[in-house]
Amino acid sequence: MMQKSSGLAAAASDRDLYALVEEFLANRFSTDNAVITEAVRRMLAAGGKRLRPRLTLLAAEANGADARDHLPLAAYMELIHVGTLIHDDVVDRADTRRGVNATAVDFGNRVSVLAGDYLFAWIFKNVTAGYAAPIPHILSATLADITDGEVLQLRALGRLDLSIGAYVEIVVKKTATLFAASAECGALAAGASPIRVKALRDFGRYYGIAFQMLDDLLDVAATEAELGKPVGNDVREKKMTIPLILALEEAPGAFRDEVERFYGASGDALGEAEGVAAVRSIVTGIVAARGLEKTREAIAAYVDRATMSLAPLGTGPVRAELAAIAGALVREARLRTA
Amino acid sequence: MMQKSSGLAAAASDRDLYALVEEFLANRFSTDNAVITEAVRRMLAAGGKRLRPRLTLLAAEANGADARDHLPLAAYMELIHVGTLIHDDVVDRADTRRGVNATAVDFGNRVSVLAGDYLFAWIFKNVTAGYAAPIPHILSATLADITDGEVLQLRALGRLDLSIGAYVEIVVKKTATLFAASAECGALAAGASPIRVKALRDFGRYYGIAFQMLDDLLDVAATEAELGKPVGNDVREKKMTIPLILALEEAPGAFRDEVERFYGASGDALGEAEGVAAVRSIVTGIVAARGLEKTREAIAAYVDRATMSLAPLGTGPVRAELAAIAGALVREARLRTA
Repeated sequence: MMQKSSGLAAAASDRDLYALVEEFLANRFSTDNAVITEAVRRMLAAGGKRLRPRLTLLAAEANGADARDHLPLAAYMELIHVGTLIHDDVVDRADTRRGVNATAVDFGNRVSVLAGDYLFAWIFKNVTAGYAAPIPHILSATLADITDGEVLQLRALGRLDLSIGAYVEIVVKKTATLFAASAECGALAAGASPIRVKALRDFGRYYGIAFQMLDDLLDVAATEAELGKPVGNDVREKKMTIPLILALEEAPGAFRDEVERFYGASGDALGEAEGVAAVRSIVTGIVAARGLEKTREAIAAYVDRATMSLAPLGTGPVRAELAAIAGALVREARLRTA
Repeated sequence: MMQKSSGLAAAASDRDLYALVEEFLANRFSTDNAVITEAVRRMLAAGGKRLRPRLTLLAAEANGADARDHLPLAAYMELIHVGTLIHDDVVDRADTRRGVNATAVDFGNRVSVLAGDYLFAWIFKNVTAGYAAPIPHILSATLADITDGEVLQLRALGRLDLSIGAYVEIVVKKTATLFAASAECGALAAGASPIRVKALRDFGRYYGIAFQMLDDLLDVAATEAELGKPVGNDVREKKMTIPLILALEEAPGAFRDEVERFYGASGDALGEAEGVAAVRSIVTGIVAARGLEKTREAIAAYVDRATMSLAPLGTGPVRAELAAIAGALVREARLRTA
């Protein structure tokens, strides 16, 4: 019944899990509300590697289950991510001069908010009906963490004194906790022992930190065509990213002064062209101060921790697949900093 | 420990339940995120009769429980309502010429969205940790219904052919289901029998329909000072309210033509002053076509059904209190249509 298609984007190393997830989302996802279903489908069609559901399925397989039996749970993980993306689309009036994303433009802020709310409620409704404790609790605690982390990140905008510890705390909440929950719930649903559940949760958590760090790195190191937005977009938004934080550690005072001017109130007073030039200059400064190499090293360290977390799983093909997914982050970071 | 204060807005008939809820929300509600806690506190401070938590507490008392033991559950019902209000504050760019509400203005759309999301997730996190099935499922299904109903209402804007049945279906989802869940969960938490749980759920549902119908009536029949927004605001937004639907049933053709013009595309082309005049004229037409009297009759009918639903509870003071809360809707409707 569940057709196995080729799955263009699926790495050979994790076989057809990508295709399984895509097929499930494409053919099985539907809600009672046509407008909301359409908004979710559009966001799904915008792409994505479906890493969260793949972690759920691999965690289930690592504990002797058949991935096909856990597709709904895996899909909920992707849909929580989709719900947060739909809500990210909601724009402030002050933001209208900037580019805006699809949902809010096509449907308006009101529908974007309602579609995300409905999706979250729909997920919890299904999870509370179909899964035993603690899975429903983990999912709702995870959504609380994600939104808490996003608020903390908003408050940290422009704060050049943000420590690496504070950065990691935000990243754990806003990004890593959903990867951790995805792996943990897959293990729980497969009836894994507590030590194996913890191993997979830890893997997801460290993987998620490295994943966000790579995302930060790409904002500086990838091309506009690859990103679908201008290089240095995080800098433009005055985000404290890990390449910037690490670059500031040992950068010359002139670079810090430059960043302080742009991230402070005077940055708001710049015209369009001056702003673009300032962002470009800061990006160059991050590279010059070894922000990218140091980020690559940090990614490698978290990927090591992720991989080591898997020790309680023993040896086996699924453990190797998880390690390969984590290792892909390091490979990508190397390519970008070569 | 739980201080009993006088509770200005509490009716004598439901004793100090209002004060109990207020005290609990004021002193016990807190989340880990200071920005979000502040946004919620502001919305709570904007007022409200705390009807939903009062239904929860009365439903618990009607089944032999002490209201004090169910304050957290009752508070969650109010907080779901508060979350939807915070999200209602999110404005479209097109809406900025109109008045906007507190949260979005003070915090921006981004924080409004995140605060509501966090609040919903926080509620589910606590409910899944503290309450047995089916309470967590009922709460998440209720939030799905509310948002589904709000989307359906958005789609019904300007649709003069909306039937009473379709109107009631929307109202059940967007408003009545939370009153139904509030009463049902109070009964469930008190260990009530299925027939008593159903009686209280039915009460909440019918009460909620009448509650929304009274809200629709007040938009036409109350004063701007009482409403805190202009009379006929629903008409201005092209909402299909029950007084309008009932007025159209037997109104002269000229009135229907006038409403069709305003609710159709040509209404968008009106200038500010013309728009205000058109809304005023339609409000007058609703009154002339007996829209208010017929709405009052519909409210009385739903309040009757609510009251009759309570029969399985037998006699007792709590049943009388619930009936009094429902009866207050009819009294208010009579005052407004005298």
